[in-house]
Amino acid sequence: MNISALLTSAGINIGLCVVLLLLYSLLRKQPSNFCVYFVRRLAQARQKRTDSLWFDRFVPSPSWILKAWETSEDEILSTAGLDAVVFIRILVFSLRVFSIAAFVCMFLVLPLNYHGQQMHHKEIAFESLEVFSIGNVKEGSKWLWAHCVALYVISCSAWLLLYFEYRSIANMRLAHIKASAKNPSHFTVLVRSIPWSPEDSYNDSVEKFFSSYHLLTYLGHQMVYRCGTVQKLMGDAEMMCRMMRSENRAVECKQNLFNCGPCGGPSQAFRMLSTGPESVQGKSVCRDLDTSTREEVAAAFVFFKTRYAAVVASQVPQSSNPMLWVTDLAPEPHDVYWSNLCIPFKQLWIRRIATLLAAIVFMFLFLIPVTFVQGLTQLDTLHHTFPFLRGLLKKKFMSQLVTGYLPSVVLMLFLYTVPPTMMLFSTVEGCISRSRRKKSACHKVLCFTIWNVFFVNVLSGSVISQLNVFSSPKDIPAQLARAVPAQASFFMTYIFTSGLASLSSEVMQPLALLWNLIRRFILRKKDDLYDKPLSFPYHIEVPRVLLFGLLGFTFSILAPLMLPFLLAYFLLAFLVYRNQILNVYSPKYETGGQLWPTVHNTTIFSLVLMQIIALGVFGLKRSPVASGFTIPLIICSLLFNEYCRQRFHPIFKNSAAQMLIDMDRQYEQSGSMEEIHRQLRSAYCQFKSGHSDQSDNGKSIQDSEDEKPGEDSNKVNEPLALHHHMESKEPNEK
Amino acid sequence: MNISALLTSAGINIGLCVVLLLLYSLLRKQPSNFCVYFVRRLAQARQKRTDSLWFDRFVPSPSWILKAWETSEDEILSTAGLDAVVFIRILVFSLRVFSIAAFVCMFLVLPLNYHGQQMHHKEIAFESLEVFSIGNVKEGSKWLWAHCVALYVISCSAWLLLYFEYRSIANMRLAHIKASAKNPSHFTVLVRSIPWSPEDSYNDSVEKFFSSYHLLTYLGHQMVYRCGTVQKLMGDAEMMCRMMRSENRAVECKQNLFNCGPCGGPSQAFRMLSTGPESVQGKSVCRDLDTSTREEVAAAFVFFKTRYAAVVASQVPQSSNPMLWVTDLAPEPHDVYWSNLCIPFKQLWIRRIATLLAAIVFMFLFLIPVTFVQGLTQLDTLHHTFPFLRGLLKKKFMSQLVTGYLPSVVLMLFLYTVPPTMMLFSTVEGCISRSRRKKSACHKVLCFTIWNVFFVNVLSGSVISQLNVFSSPKDIPAQLARAVPAQASFFMTYIFTSGLASLSSEVMQPLALLWNLIRRFILRKKDDLYDKPLSFPYHIEVPRVLLFGLLGFTFSILAPLMLPFLLAYFLLAFLVYRNQILNVYSPKYETGGQLWPTVHNTTIFSLVLMQIIALGVFGLKRSPVASGFTIPLIICSLLFNEYCRQRFHPIFKNSAAQMLIDMDRQYEQSGSMEEIHRQLRSAYCQFKSGHSDQSDNGKSIQDSEDEKPGEDSNKVNEPLALHHHMESKEPNEK
Repeated sequence: MNISALLTSAGINIGLCVVLLLLYSLLRKQPSNFCVYFVRRLAQARQKRTDSLWFDRFVPSPSWILKAWETSEDEILSTAGLDAVVFIRILVFSLRVFSIAAFVCMFLVLPLNYHGQQMHHKEIAFESLEVFSIGNVKEGSKWLWAHCVALYVISCSAWLLLYFEYRSIANMRLAHIKASAKNPSHFTVLVRSIPWSPEDSYNDSVEKFFSSYHLLTYLGHQMVYRCGTVQKLMGDAEMMCRMMRSENRAVECKQNLFNCGPCGGPSQAFRMLSTGPESVQGKSVCRDLDTSTREEVAAAFVFFKTRYAAVVASQVPQSSNPMLWVTDLAPEPHDVYWSNLCIPFKQLWIRRIATLLAAIVFMFLFLIPVTFVQGLTQLDTLHHTFPFLRGLLKKKFMSQLVTGYLPSVVLMLFLYTVPPTMMLFSTVEGCISRSRRKKSACHKVLCFTIWNVFFVNVLSGSVISQLNVFSSPKDIPAQLARAVPAQASFFMTYIFTSGLASLSSEVMQPLALLWNLIRRFILRKKDDLYDKPLSFPYHIEVPRVLLFGLLGFTFSILAPLMLPFLLAYFLLAFLVYRNQILNVYSPKYETGGQLWPTVHNTTIFSLVLMQIIALGVFGLKRSPVASGFTIPLIICSLLFNEYCRQRFHPIFKNSAAQMLIDMDRQYEQSGSMEEIHRQLRSAYCQFKSGHSDQSDNGKSIQDSEDEKPGEDSNKVNEPLALHHHMESKEPNEK
Repeated sequence: MNISALLTSAGINIGLCVVLLLLYSLLRKQPSNFCVYFVRRLAQARQKRTDSLWFDRFVPSPSWILKAWETSEDEILSTAGLDAVVFIRILVFSLRVFSIAAFVCMFLVLPLNYHGQQMHHKEIAFESLEVFSIGNVKEGSKWLWAHCVALYVISCSAWLLLYFEYRSIANMRLAHIKASAKNPSHFTVLVRSIPWSPEDSYNDSVEKFFSSYHLLTYLGHQMVYRCGTVQKLMGDAEMMCRMMRSENRAVECKQNLFNCGPCGGPSQAFRMLSTGPESVQGKSVCRDLDTSTREEVAAAFVFFKTRYAAVVASQVPQSSNPMLWVTDLAPEPHDVYWSNLCIPFKQLWIRRIATLLAAIVFMFLFLIPVTFVQGLTQLDTLHHTFPFLRGLLKKKFMSQLVTGYLPSVVLMLFLYTVPPTMMLFSTVEGCISRSRRKKSACHKVLCFTIWNVFFVNVLSGSVISQLNVFSSPKDIPAQLARAVPAQASFFMTYIFTSGLASLSSEVMQPLALLWNLIRRFILRKKDDLYDKPLSFPYHIEVPRVLLFGLLGFTFSILAPLMLPFLLAYFLLAFLVYRNQILNVYSPKYETGGQLWPTVHNTTIFSLVLMQIIALGVFGLKRSPVASGFTIPLIICSLLFNEYCRQRFHPIFKNSAAQMLIDMDRQYEQSGSMEEIHRQLRSAYCQFKSGHSDQSDNGKSIQDSEDEKPGEDSNKVNEPLALHHHMESKEPNEK
């Protein structure tokens, strides 16, 4: 592949991307699309916008880019939560580290590569990409020290930046926990595997156990009920019945729905539905609601009087038999994945192993399409496999298109099936909360992506016929050093196709747009009932961004030409994702930055991989000095990782006694503990509405109950801040 | 190697062993050797024995074997503690599982191996050992199903026995914790990495922190002081001074030392030494004793009012910074390794990594002697390397001796240096207690032994010139299947030499005997001041026994001839170790069976290795059915291990809330909590006597304080039971 082929590919993609972004800047101004592009804001503000029919609507404008750029991190934190900030931080970190890498590599490494061998250089457009890579440096060249210095600079800056990011995110997490002090999950412990006894029901067992062993701090509990399909249907029927009864009142209320004050307003619509049964059965709606018809399972939410007591109960094993009375801090109410709570605890370990095996098998079955795709980049193979294409492929443009563009597109299409599959695996695994399920899926997709996109392409690309590559651990660096640089051109086009295409499809939201159009013009629904905003698909986006980080690190000194493209990608990603986080996605739950340790570990993995490949390359180029200097770098990376694991990782696992006790004291002194206790009992509602598994309603109730302005700065100020934000910053809303 | 060579080797070793055992049965009856062979009993009973000059003394007798056989497990538990019982259980488990294996293999597998090929069998004495191994079975033989069945029988019986052992030891551990309820370590938390503040001393910081955050349960604390060499010398001088002052009283007391009643008696002698300073400085001897001259380090023992509070404080992270206020349950007072408490906590992780690396490097450097040893088994190599030996080696007996005996002896001698080295590594690692240090050394020695004795012999024996054996993970079973059976004869002789020699040297205690002789006849010391009894060297013996287990499993179906020898070894080991545990070693501290998870995991490893090798062998023998049936076995072994890890392993890590709270309540109701609290403050004494690192004295104090008959059945009844035991069972003591 030469420069012109690369530029063809880049041109097609950048052109497409620009067109799509222009289209987006038009579409987003059309009021009919507000429920696609501003679904988060609308769902939160729940106000009709004035349909301004200005000329402005039909002129593409970069206003959204400006806005995405200008929004401060605090604003994102207050509107979209810590997880969104952590995601943005990945992009910021990548931008920073790759700026440094690009600077060093473009001015130090690239010229050395280009002039690495005594050769007659062609015109730059027809120069092969090989000439810009480390492959062009002579064996035993003295100039390899420059590559080694670049490696040191990149590694050191990555360590520094990683350290500061980890520290700042750990601090943000602590601040987040302090700020979300009224979160009922802090006071709640999920108990599983309650032992069955012939004389007592599970309910009584829990009551007895906790009032015996945690007498001073035990507040109450709430059983989990079986939610099979039959139970669900029965519950649904019952709920429908109730809803019908309260229909009249709902209709009455609907008329003054949007006048109910700026703060309490947003979730009124849901509150009404839920106040139906509430008004029938009184305060303890969740516990008394048709529990007689439901079957208890061996799990319960146990409420404690203080946060510290809950943490203690969750961390100290309760019973001498580790398979009984298993405790764990409860997830947030709207984060609970109810149907998985019914899985017997004893099944979990076997489920976990089974899904792990299934995921591994899936990873390896996926080799088939990837190998096929890799075959496309080699024209000879293609000629051989599809003889009828021979005529077509003789045209230069077509062959450039096929080698430079098609493989990535095919691969990308296959990759779209992966996140849902992994999500399914994580569901079967038995995660008790949506956030954990997403995190687990994220890990799986990440391993999958790195293995199937990076390693399989690298390894099968170099020795396509044989897959038993790693003959001996000692040879790995050399093997990688031979295989990786050869794939630079493939991955450069991959950045265009996968990267830019994913960003533009992200910003365009084609599916939502299509669905909106269908609903409007085919189903003829006029009321744009703002659909529930989606939560951010971390399990899709995080692995993607981290994969680009991996590519950036591994290719930085091998093929520095990749870095400018990568920087462009990260910059666009930074703008697009900020825009989406502000306008489209709405967090349903908060993990408090639990993603960062994964990001950190993956980055360390990328760093070490970069260093191992460099070690191999220096070995192949017969530069013992450079090789020798690379080994301490690998050791330092691993030690740095170990240090960070010791220093920061525990913060993401457990809460500390000191902080919790301080928080408890503060609330006890201010006298608001009583109120929290009162709210606790109704926080976890398994069968609140007909949609027992869609817990947004749960959130609304909880929100509306929680919202006391000025106390919970993080959650409570959110609608207010947003409101203000929309009014002041949205240009077409004045 | 043929049967006669094997029998030569066996003959030499068994003859030696029998002679040594006879010698032992004589020597042990000589009163002058009592302090070698009954040091534990003497140290505990502390009574002069009547020097009976009977004829009996000069007749070898098997009485000790009978006694070792007859002693019940409860007696061992009460005299030597749970750890000794767990060690004996390893032998019992091995005896059981290898009896089953021997039965199956001798009657099913061995005949099939012997008649595996149509061949003319020689006279049995000159039959090569190969004929009895699986190597003699034809390729594609139908009879391999028998091997597969044997594999299933051995695996299933191993699973069952392992499960029951794990369960019973877990129950014993729980019972042990309940029984040792007055142990001060239950109430104590070791706090490390106390933050330094300019205004407060560490002492004040601890006081402030715990009285602020654990107000209701905090009882007090005790700082740890720096114990460098200078401090130690100063302390020693001061102690000497004090001891001189109390000398007079000590002499007075010594005369009626052995009349002080049967219970309080045993530790009177030590009590006196320690009551010296106690009487000078009052009750709080440990805390007030010269703390002014000592430098505090950032570590302290914090005492809590209840066991539950201590466990909570040790398990919940105290500070938001995971590197500050690090808590851990304290070890028993005489288990504390004081000098390691002074190591700054922040160094620990790097020390751990450094020692791990050092241990690995040591493991690989050890390859040199092992490779040399392995060369000895191959006469050709030997002829080649040492041409001057050629004449000697031509003699048949010599060549048998050299191939059958010498390699094991050389290997064994080298192996003697390993445990002290690993113990040194574990000390440098920074373990806070002697038991953890021993456990860590045990792990290191275990890995070392399995790698250097088993794998290196197997792999270098088969391909002595090349060491890059594992060309691909897929080939491992086949590689092992080729290499392992070839080493059967080496390991058979290894069982004789290493196994029998170690047992006879264990029972003879040559070093102690020699030292005793020197002391008696050269140094002319007449007072047989009973030396401090040693504690059982688990880090030496456990890896040895587990290695034999590994050999038993891996060779059971490959070379069933090994099993009878192995059974004989285990039977003798059972008798010898019981005898030693009863008579020689004295537990200084108790880990509560912490060894068993290691034993369990190693056994599972052996099982899986056996199955993998069998898989390889069946593959080589072209029996796809047998191979196919082996794979589920491997999966089941791993699943079984995972289940046991889930079900039992947490019991060995943390104590459960339920049990602790029950224990606390029981003691509070009986009113003995106050007394425990009072004793707590003097339990941990860093600079009690001159020997600040030899904590036996600490133990004696604690024993003498603890001994209230009828309350602490485990510890308190010990001297009484022993006393009774010695009088009733020792034939020459009447």
